[in-house]
Amino acid sequence: MACSKYEYVKKFEQESILLPNTYVVIRIDGRGFHKFCESHNFEKPNDERAIHLMNRCASHVMELTTDVMLSYGQSDEYSFILKRDSTLFGRRASKIESSLVSLFASCFVFYWKDFFPDLSLKYPPCFDSRSVCYPTFENLYDYLCWRQVDCHINNLYNTTFWALVQQGGMSPLDAENKLKGTLSNTKNEILFTQFNINYNNLPAIFRKGSILIWKEVKEVVKTNPDGTSVSR
Amino acid sequence: MACSKYEYVKKFEQESILLPNTYVVIRIDGRGFHKFCESHNFEKPNDERAIHLMNRCASHVMELTTDVMLSYGQSDEYSFILKRDSTLFGRRASKIESSLVSLFASCFVFYWKDFFPDLSLKYPPCFDSRSVCYPTFENLYDYLCWRQVDCHINNLYNTTFWALVQQGGMSPLDAENKLKGTLSNTKNEILFTQFNINYNNLPAIFRKGSILIWKEVKEVVKTNPDGTSVSR
Amino acid sequence: MACSKYEYVKKFEQESILLPNTYVVIRIDGRGFHKFCESHNFEKPNDERAIHLMNRCASHVMELTTDVMLSYGQSDEYSFILKRDSTLFGRRASKIESSLVSLFASCFVFYWKDFFPDLSLKYPPCFDSRSVCYPTFENLYDYLCWRQVDCHINNLYNTTFWALVQQGGMSPLDAENKLKGTLSNTKNEILFTQFNINYNNLPAIFRKGSILIWKEVKEVVKTNPDGTSVSR
Amino acid sequence: MACSKYEYVKKFEQESILLPNTYVVIRIDGRGFHKFCESHNFEKPNDERAIHLMNRCASHVMELTTDVMLSYGQSDEYSFILKRDSTLFGRRASKIESSLVSLFASCFVFYWKDFFPDLSLKYPPCFDSRSVCYPTFENLYDYLCWRQVDCHINNLYNTTFWALVQQGGMSPLDAENKLKGTLSNTKNEILFTQFNINYNNLPAIFRKGSILIWKEVKEVVKTNPDGTSVSR
Ligand SMILES: Nc1nc2c(ncn2[C@H]2C[C@H](O)[C@@H](COP(=O)(O)OP(=O)(O)OP(=O)(O)O)O2)c(=O)[nH]1
Ligand SMILES: Nc1nc2c(ncn2[C@H]2C[C@H](O)[C@@H](COP(=O)(O)OP(=O)(O)OP(=O)(O)O)O2)c(=O)[nH]1
Ligand SMILES: Nc1nc2c(ncn2[C@H]2C[C@H](O)[C@@H](COP(=O)(O)OP(=O)(O)OP(=O)(O)O)O2)c(=O)[nH]1
Ligand SMILES: Nc1nc2c(ncn2[C@H]2C[C@H](O)[C@@H](COP(=O)(O)OP(=O)(O)OP(=O)(O)O)O2)c(=O)[nH]1
Ligand SMILES: O=P(O)(O)OP(=O)(O)OP(=O)(O)O
Ligand SMILES: O=P(O)(O)OP(=O)(O)OP(=O)(O)O
Ligand SMILES: O=P(O)(O)OP(=O)(O)OP(=O)(O)O
Ligand SMILES: O=P(O)(O)OP(=O)(O)OP(=O)(O)O
Ligand SMILES: [Mg+2]
Ligand SMILES: [Mg+2]
Ligand SMILES: [Mg+2]
Ligand SMILES: [Mg+2]
Ligand SMILES: [Mg+2]
Ligand SMILES: [Mg+2]
Ligand SMILES: [Mg+2]
Ligand SMILES: [Mg+2]
Ligand SMILES: [Mg+2]
Ligand SMILES: [Mg+2]
Ligand SMILES: [Mg+2]
Ligand SMILES: [Mg+2]
Repeated sequence: MACSKYEYVKKFEQESILLPNTYVVIRIDGRGFHKFCESHNFEKPNDERAIHLMNRCASHVMELTTDVMLSYGQSDEYSFILKRDSTLFGRRASKIESSLVSLFASCFVFYWKDFFPDLSLKYPPCFDSRSVCYPTFENLYDYLCWRQVDCHINNLYNTTFWALVQQGGMSPLDAENKLKGTLSNTKNEILFTQFNINYNNLPAIFRKGSILIWKEVKEVVKTNPDGTSVSR
Repeated sequence: MACSKYEYVKKFEQESILLPNTYVVIRIDGRGFHKFCESHNFEKPNDERAIHLMNRCASHVMELTTDVMLSYGQSDEYSFILKRDSTLFGRRASKIESSLVSLFASCFVFYWKDFFPDLSLKYPPCFDSRSVCYPTFENLYDYLCWRQVDCHINNLYNTTFWALVQQGGMSPLDAENKLKGTLSNTKNEILFTQFNINYNNLPAIFRKGSILIWKEVKEVVKTNPDGTSVSR
Repeated sequence: MACSKYEYVKKFEQESILLPNTYVVIRIDGRGFHKFCESHNFEKPNDERAIHLMNRCASHVMELTTDVMLSYGQSDEYSFILKRDSTLFGRRASKIESSLVSLFASCFVFYWKDFFPDLSLKYPPCFDSRSVCYPTFENLYDYLCWRQVDCHINNLYNTTFWALVQQGGMSPLDAENKLKGTLSNTKNEILFTQFNINYNNLPAIFRKGSILIWKEVKEVVKTNPDGTSVSR
Repeated sequence: MACSKYEYVKKFEQESILLPNTYVVIRIDGRGFHKFCESHNFEKPNDERAIHLMNRCASHVMELTTDVMLSYGQSDEYSFILKRDSTLFGRRASKIESSLVSLFASCFVFYWKDFFPDLSLKYPPCFDSRSVCYPTFENLYDYLCWRQVDCHINNLYNTTFWALVQQGGMSPLDAENKLKGTLSNTKNEILFTQFNINYNNLPAIFRKGSILIWKEVKEVVKTNPDGTSVSR
């Protein structure tokens, strides 16, 4: 056909296939979200509207990608985990990474007004995406721990930092210096003694992030003549 | 630090670096846009609003990614070409592919209302993305020809098909059968003799697609005391 | 230093790292060994000298690569299996594949005269090499089964084929036609009824291939004054 | 067929294809050749027998791989350059890297006695191998310069070092200290004033390495009745 003279250029595409029988994690992360959150005056350290928007997007992605068995989100990132035997896009890395991240990004704008009804989006956000294979459940478990520990550490730091600044009247620089090199218990103590905040009583969604899993639901498949129903 | 026990999981990330000194093409393509266009009642075969929206998104991407030297769009796809010496994201394939496609997708939703003021977006769109390296200018040129020939062939077919259906009152199946295996000149003739359409006079943006390039602009850098100005 | 002007070319090297925590199989296979075996008048279908030479080479490779936990050989191929946690060459695929195959090939020539004392090597042999990651023990096990089933099928076929030709006086073409599409039991029967060969009594090394594993040995680490010794 | 239950394991093979229309360099390098050269009492800094053996191996490889347009060797390494349009092994990286290196290694043992008739090979050598794509002739040229500059620098250093030790009676440590941080001209001067050696007059094969290229030869294709011949 008429295309044929140029079609050789397709041979330059180099496909990378994700190793079969491994858990595939696709992690997306907001690009330059420090600035994005500032621009939109997100509450510090956690803006609940933003968290719920992120969760809404992730659940939209998951509904359309049933091979995702679990998703975990915190801060400006979300991890989607494909089951071991997924054959999504023939396990082509680029297809999987790009489809999930672009859908997430377009959801972010699409659902924005549902979570920020009074605030218009200043500019379209951008996310990066990567895929990683984990050969064992243990490795996958450690991956999730890694992201959750990251959530915990950042959140404890940020909570203490903003308490010192917003409630304690400290300058950001002074707060930073005060916290430099401190361990968890020091931060817990500052929060408790100085601001009467028991860190462990803060909302779990801030401290631990969000997890999305499938819930088995009974679906009515037939209604019997006697009014009873058959479900599965 | 407390993370360290789990941080080993980061070693499972496998980075793919795009070969230096090659032109990098990132092509994105709407996923399931047949259905998307149907759902939003896009005009057939070309909806000008959609084309201008795509172009708006691409120009937003280009403004934020100055290493893109040229972009070419047609149908539901866009190709972004990085200059040979680009070091964008250290030429990491996943970062480049995902950032561009997610920005494009979020622009698509963000700018939708500017081009479809009377039509609300039914659901968030999704795009895939891939990167391909071309070692020579000739290969790059052939790549662009390949996409443009694809545009031409599809557009000539679609234009004739919809003329037969919409103006000629044919059923889609009959139109399909009539066009099966025909060459370009047959389609040109059908258009001309039956519908008085000279294909070559149709808007070039339909027949050839859209191209975005940088335009050198003179910028006033200093205004002289005498009122004249220095520009570069 | 003086090199620096040209050293940028090293950046074009694209390293591929084998996924951590997976079993790595490196399979090597003689290139054009049909011809090589013919040229050296190898006995058909199995030349014991050749098998022992292959095994000698593999054991040399294994002695120098202690991360290889098991090796399996048959026909002109050998598979080396690295333990999951191997960090050999930082798990760089090219380094591992090339080092093992080149050592094997040079061993093949080096040890040739020990197994073919009366036959000089006509030309230097060549092998290819590839590495494959298996995430679970089950996958690895199936890999080994795959190679062993291949050995079995080829050997049963070849044994029957050469019996028909060498003992039965058939032409190669007639033998081929006779065996075309036959199942295992037909071949077993031909061997038994026509040539009085009970296939299962043929040497296991022909039917099943060779396996090399590490044997724990007690090593004398100290000799006591009373003449007894301490070993570990 | 009977294999099918296990054949799924073949899907775990991940092929890497070298970018089309690029020069492919396959560089092999002796592993642990410092020790190998010591063990075999190679002359220092250059053993002509070893160089000619390496060249013999490379020319054997080249004869069997006509897609190699040029080879360059120095020290314990050799670079083979495939022409841009080579389709050798479908440009599969592992196949190319492994076939060349294993053939080279087996040649090394095979031809050893032709160059070291009085010295038996103590143990089989091992080489690593890698492939690198260069998109332009300029990059390829710079690659060759890089290897040749490496040859020059090492050879000048080694020549001076061994002159100081072997002829000058210095201890290796003293020689090393004397040369530490010196530039080329200092080494040239030491050679000239202290040992009456004009570095530039040393054999080019030591200073510059070896290059193998194809030579066009006229081949007699027909002998005419009148005794004259037709060649091409
Ligand atoms: N105020 C506020 N900021 C948030 C919230 N969630 C995330 N952020 C901000 C805090 C961090 O500056 C940023 C996430 O950290 P990252 O390491 O991803 O940085 P960023 O996205 O700026 O850079 P990147 O492009 O990912 O390298 O997002 C929130 O709920 N409220
Ligand atoms: N009506 C209408 N349809 C369009 C227009 N531009 C693109 N399309 C449709 C025509 C095709 O069905 C589709 C693009 O073809 P593709 O091969 O990309 O198909 P699709 O996106 O459905 O599948 P994919 O997920 O890319 O494999 O988009 C337009 O301006 N008007
Ligand atoms: N006579 C004889 N031939 C053998 C023996 N072991 C292996 N062979 C031959 C039989 C096959 O023709 C060949 C191995 O099959 P392959 O599929 O590896 O074929 P070959 O190496 O010719 O092609 P390749 O370069 O690997 O694609 O080696 C043996 O002990 N005796
Ligand atoms: N005496 C002597 N030594 C040589 C000659 N050619 C090469 N060598 C030695 C000098 C170096 O120690 C060594 C080549 O340097 P490499 O950087 O390749 O080191 P080596 O092979 O030991 O380590 P590697 O396994 O490649 O990382 O080979 C020669 O003609 N005579
Ligand atoms: O982005 P960072 O700094 O949190 O860490 P990373 O995501 O591992 O780094 P990169 O985005 O460069 O892959
Ligand atoms: O999507 P197609 O069919 O136009 O062709 P392709 O984009 O080359 O195929 P794929 O999307 O599967 O890479
Ligand atoms: O070589 P074959 O035909 O036994 O099968 P393969 O080794 O899987 O094929 P290739 O050598 O081309 O990878
Ligand atoms: O081996 P070196 O140190 O000369 O340098 P290299 O070959 O680039 O390093 P490696 O063998 O580890 O790829
Ligand atoms: Mg990041
Ligand atoms: Mg971020
Ligand atoms: Mg982040
Ligand atoms: Mg496609
Ligand atoms: Mg599409
Ligand atoms: Mg398309
Ligand atoms: Mg093979
Ligand atoms: Mg073979
Ligand atoms: Mg074989
Ligand atoms: Mg090296
Ligand atoms: Mg070396
Ligand atoms: Mg070397």
